[in-house]
Amino acid sequence: MITSNQNSKIKLVRALLGRSKERREAGAFVVEGVRLVEEAAKGDWRFEIVLFDETLSERGKEILKTLSTKGVEIEEVSASVMKFLSDTEAPQGILAVLKFYQSPISNRLNFILIPDQIRDPGNLGTLLRSAAASGAQAVWIPPETTDAFAPKVLRSGMGAHFRLAIHSMSWEEIEQVVKLEGLNVYVADMDGPSCWETDLRKPLALIIGGEAEGASESARKLANRKIGIPMSGAVESLNAGVAGSVLMFEVMRQRSVNRE
Amino acid sequence: MITSNQNSKIKLVRALLGRSKERREAGAFVVEGVRLVEEAAKGDWRFEIVLFDETLSERGKEILKTLSTKGVEIEEVSASVMKFLSDTEAPQGILAVLKFYQSPISNRLNFILIPDQIRDPGNLGTLLRSAAASGAQAVWIPPETTDAFAPKVLRSGMGAHFRLAIHSMSWEEIEQVVKLEGLNVYVADMDGPSCWETDLRKPLALIIGGEAEGASESARKLANRKIGIPMSGAVESLNAGVAGSVLMFEVMRQRSVNRE
Repeated sequence: MITSNQNSKIKLVRALLGRSKERREAGAFVVEGVRLVEEAAKGDWRFEIVLFDETLSERGKEILKTLSTKGVEIEEVSASVMKFLSDTEAPQGILAVLKFYQSPISNRLNFILIPDQIRDPGNLGTLLRSAAASGAQAVWIPPETTDAFAPKVLRSGMGAHFRLAIHSMSWEEIEQVVKLEGLNVYVADMDGPSCWETDLRKPLALIIGGEAEGASESARKLANRKIGIPMSGAVESLNAGVAGSVLMFEVMRQRSVNRE
Repeated sequence: MITSNQNSKIKLVRALLGRSKERREAGAFVVEGVRLVEEAAKGDWRFEIVLFDETLSERGKEILKTLSTKGVEIEEVSASVMKFLSDTEAPQGILAVLKFYQSPISNRLNFILIPDQIRDPGNLGTLLRSAAASGAQAVWIPPETTDAFAPKVLRSGMGAHFRLAIHSMSWEEIEQVVKLEGLNVYVADMDGPSCWETDLRKPLALIIGGEAEGASESARKLANRKIGIPMSGAVESLNAGVAGSVLMFEVMRQRSVNRE
């Protein structure tokens, strides 16, 4: 059992929970809590190590069994080490280090989300969760958006990270794929034409700008159309997570209801 | 200029920023920041007092001018007192104590939001913001939901508090008005029929349950219909603020697009 915060494995996990640079260099990230580790275990994700403590629930212990049959390294740590590592107020006694898995950028793309200049981890997590729920295939993260694999984003994504292809991409790469695949690129803009009167059934990428600065210059250059949500009265804007979610579910609605 | 945190006015503001009991007893609440005070000043809200400090922007000073012509009591405080009071990391040098204004529950109701067992202030604020943007007339707050006039709810509501009729109501009162007005009551439920295949053009109240516990017994008893958002793949649920927003904008869409 690991009881020291100075243990090299503990130091590594701590570093991975911190800055995105550490995650990038190690090619790994940390998920915490029973539900998220369970979701990761269901998929093809490669586990580096799993840490648990005595407070782990029965449901959590079931996951350990499954993972140990797969040959994953599992180590017990003291409750105080777990508390030292945990990013949450109520740790659930389990966390796992996973290797990044970049699925290839597939072809036949028809529904992509591009969260642009989204700095708030909670907002990005919300967008990922709604993207997974509304049937988006992939999320492309441009350089100005916060790291999608930070602990808070993973937490508010509620497992979306394991259901979506998430790619960090430069604007040049995004432009290349968009052209190759012939995607329409829409940028959310409250002055744009109503999403209810826009045909969203053709393959598209949807750019949602951050609340503070909106969409970036690069995003606006790439987008060939604006799209807006009609709003009542004097309301000027919506939370970025909400605006993106309303637009993504409108894409899903049109594609499931109006099959012409 | 008030320079002491022990000043009786400062103590009052501090209490009003804290517990909802204090707000209820005083019949007053506090708004902070240039934008929110500006929005309140545009409406019919009764100001008890406005506090500002030397860091206030030009735009903020304009509001002070307007309010002083209306006879509102305005007091300068030291920057340290403002910091002591402020609920935010970057205070904007202005806050105002406002009297609650309960507009009468009007008749001819056609679109009401009921956020039920919503404990997270950010989620409640998001719901209020989306309610104002999607044309809801009123929001009824049942007893189990967090106080709509807490500082964090006001902040994430982004001015929605000044555009909506917000009523704290018991379930008995809600039932009474619902019957009187003949409203359909829908409760959001991921197993309910698709919102896209439900006619939402008739007068309705929409109940959104909290993320942890869902809708309460009282809510389920009152509701005569369930309504769901179709979801892709294995996704089980959405953030309560997002689910409510998607449903409210679907109400708005149906009423603006399908005028039959």
